[in-house]
Amino acid sequence: GLDKIINSDPVAITFFIGYMAMFASAVFFLVERGSVDGKWKTSLLVSALITGIAAVHYYYMRDFYLETGQSPTAFRYVDWTLTVPLMCVEFYLLTKPFGAKGGTLFKLILASLVMLITGFIGETSGIENNIMWGILSTLGYLYIVYEVFAGDVAKLAKTSQSPALGKAMFLLKIFITLGWSIYPIGYMVLPGNLLSGAFEVSSIDLFYNLADAINKIGFGLVIYSVAIAESAKHR
Amino acid sequence: GLDKIINSDPVAITFFIGYMAMFASAVFFLVERGSVDGKWKTSLLVSALITGIAAVHYYYMRDFYLETGQSPTAFRYVDWTLTVPLMCVEFYLLTKPFGAKGGTLFKLILASLVMLITGFIGETSGIENNIMWGILSTLGYLYIVYEVFAGDVAKLAKTSQSPALGKAMFLLKIFITLGWSIYPIGYMVLPGNLLSGAFEVSSIDLFYNLADAINKIGFGLVIYSVAIAESAKHR
Ligand SMILES: CC1=C(/C=C/C(C)=C/C=C/C(C)=C/C=O)C(C)(C)CCC1
Ligand SMILES: CC1=C(/C=C/C(C)=C/C=C/C(C)=C/C=O)C(C)(C)CCC1
Repeated sequence: GLDKIINSDPVAITFFIGYMAMFASAVFFLVERGSVDGKWKTSLLVSALITGIAAVHYYYMRDFYLETGQSPTAFRYVDWTLTVPLMCVEFYLLTKPFGAKGGTLFKLILASLVMLITGFIGETSGIENNIMWGILSTLGYLYIVYEVFAGDVAKLAKTSQSPALGKAMFLLKIFITLGWSIYPIGYMVLPGNLLSGAFEVSSIDLFYNLADAINKIGFGLVIYSVAIAESAKHR
Repeated sequence: GLDKIINSDPVAITFFIGYMAMFASAVFFLVERGSVDGKWKTSLLVSALITGIAAVHYYYMRDFYLETGQSPTAFRYVDWTLTVPLMCVEFYLLTKPFGAKGGTLFKLILASLVMLITGFIGETSGIENNIMWGILSTLGYLYIVYEVFAGDVAKLAKTSQSPALGKAMFLLKIFITLGWSIYPIGYMVLPGNLLSGAFEVSSIDLFYNLADAINKIGFGLVIYSVAIAESAKHR
């Protein structure tokens, strides 16, 4: 029940903040969708879906955590299974005007599924194996980093003429390298992993909740500000 | 309750992913409906209804499965009884500009009802009879395949001049033959049927959930991309 949060449990508090922040962001992106030019509307809808889907799962995770005191691993991965591919769709929509191909989107989604499935096995497989699975998962992650820095996505970004879009692509790189790297750091606090002992086990959810807020809401806001800047040009 | 999902039961996890994916898709199709030309609006609304109806039934199926640990057969067929005829309506709307007739739609819906009623009897009739009912059901399915490849639907598709629509018709065939064939494969894991023993009984829902995601969301996205491509032409 709700009474448990008064024990000022920081993990519970971040689940509450996360839930409300995701919900409010979904409303924001959905309503502001009406104020941007046609081609940006889909991007803003996808941002609304990412944060809206997350709101539902934060609601479950919050309850699960309050009831059991445990990390809601399954819900976390259910959420990521839907929202990480949608983040890849955001990158695709951003670069599509410069000729991004469906094949690149497909490669990004495939890499993210590899990253998430191996990550989930790692989190549920116990002390002996989570380092090995974490390394496999990191390979999927590094492939995405590679695509954005040196692969198809990077090539397209160079051909862009719009300063607003150039800035968005620069920020995209920052999000993928710094923002996303908070997740594997969180994973490393699992018992038997590299940071185990340095933090409490329950702090895995502090890392994940922080990272989710930065990446889902923060990146959505970057897209939003490009959309507003580009839409103002044609007025 | 929600706590059962921590047993990292893959069937439960796919019900959660399925629920959220259907819900998010319904929102997507409904909102994006505003961005396509008039004649595509009905198709996008039907896609939203198919995934929206499915979201409600996934919500029921998820709870039923968590409570009882059993396959939610009745909910599944309640869902299909509504969504399969709506899929036929989608095929009809796609070919209507090329002269599709109401009679063809009627034949497709009739065949799908035969397929679903016999399939439901098969799933609930027990070990001795489910192969026989499965064969009857497959006749209904094969009739639909025939209509799309050699019957009325196929003839119309040939007369189409639009490359976007030609591609959609090609993908429609792939969905009907490959996408839909996942369902009978799932059915065959029933005790006493052809694949019984090769997979666990509970994997019937893994097959059905995967197939539903591909066919309901995937085909909706195909229609969406044709609608966007055709709408862009007239701008
Ligand atoms: C590398 C790595 C991981 C990466 C997770 C990431 C990068 C998740 C990103 C989630 C996002 C961006 C959600 C947004 O909606 C895991 C699975 C923790 C396992 C350990 C190794
Ligand atoms: C052939 C066959 C079956 C086919 C089921 C199909 C093809 C269902 C399609 C559902 C769709 C497309 C839903 C979309 O919204 C059954 C009934 C499993 C019984 C065994 C034989």
